[in-house]
Amino acid sequence: MQYIEPLAKLIENLRALPGIGSKTAARLAYHILDMEPSKAKALAKAIIDAKEKIGFCNTCFNLSDVNPCSICAAANRDHSTICVVEQPRDVAAMERMRDFKGVYHVLHGVLSPLDGIGPDNIRVKELLVRLQTTKVKELIMATNPNVEGEATAMYIAKLVKPAGIKVTRIAHGLPMGGDLEYADEITLAKALENRREI
Amino acid sequence: MQYIEPLAKLIENLRALPGIGSKTAARLAYHILDMEPSKAKALAKAIIDAKEKIGFCNTCFNLSDVNPCSICAAANRDHSTICVVEQPRDVAAMERMRDFKGVYHVLHGVLSPLDGIGPDNIRVKELLVRLQTTKVKELIMATNPNVEGEATAMYIAKLVKPAGIKVTRIAHGLPMGGDLEYADEITLAKALENRREI
Repeated sequence: MQYIEPLAKLIENLRALPGIGSKTAARLAYHILDMEPSKAKALAKAIIDAKEKIGFCNTCFNLSDVNPCSICAAANRDHSTICVVEQPRDVAAMERMRDFKGVYHVLHGVLSPLDGIGPDNIRVKELLVRLQTTKVKELIMATNPNVEGEATAMYIAKLVKPAGIKVTRIAHGLPMGGDLEYADEITLAKALENRREI
Repeated sequence: MQYIEPLAKLIENLRALPGIGSKTAARLAYHILDMEPSKAKALAKAIIDAKEKIGFCNTCFNLSDVNPCSICAAANRDHSTICVVEQPRDVAAMERMRDFKGVYHVLHGVLSPLDGIGPDNIRVKELLVRLQTTKVKELIMATNPNVEGEATAMYIAKLVKPAGIKVTRIAHGLPMGGDLEYADEITLAKALENRREI
């Protein structure tokens, strides 16, 4: 069946979202048609508002609706410890932990020569400028534990170390609650290599 | 972490959609923030447009942006055969088959005494009025093959039969491509009961 045009357009737009196929898009669209008009309007407004109000913090390049962002502006955080992450959602993950009291730097990507992404395509230059203008004691590389993440961490470490800044990498090993039996070989090798005396 | 307010609002609104949990809502929200502004606007506009432009056809109560809907207005369809379905999405499913040349009547629900849904809460009255004002030869009950769907089909059949209108029910049996081994007992019993000579 040809869906009627406004419905077809809604389904098409929903299907462009990640992980939403044709069937889910249709289900969501029918649900939206069933919603209270005020709630559908709130959803549309939330989309527009998020796009219009949210930009990047000029210091750490995390998503923010103020500049500098609330983390960079916080007096009770340790501004001499910067945690370098790939994406804004990684900042959200770190903050959920409630344990880290330093500040962040969001790269917005990782080095990936195969995809044509070099240092100029991610926020490396901005990090170097930041390290020159503020006194930083430690840089924690918290890029993802995969090939690109490791390479990016190593690349930035090499650039930064000559300036006498301590660069650390988050630990790799078995996830808590994980099962040795089901761990992949590389994780297990890392866990063994990084063993600590107890 | 407290998400910044416009992001939190977007996540909250997305989470209200069916099958979208906190994590998926966050993932979709981050994706929307990464989208081209024009595409995000198109999504918001599609939601608003769908709500504003789509209403019900006054004849069959299917979703439509015109009145009567394109199916009720079509001269090449058999207006004396009405297929009664529960939801607009069921019309879409029937139309995908491209085989049915009659018209529809959408009940917008099924009888469900436990949920307090009686004949007055679904479009039964409108169906009876329609049967009085137009010449109908056959009413095909295509409500879902479950307790409520069966009960609704039986209820309407009882109301309509005295007027001399033929009422039929779609067949129950094994789905095509299905496997006898994995069929549930009730389906198998129905398939056996409705066996045909070949």
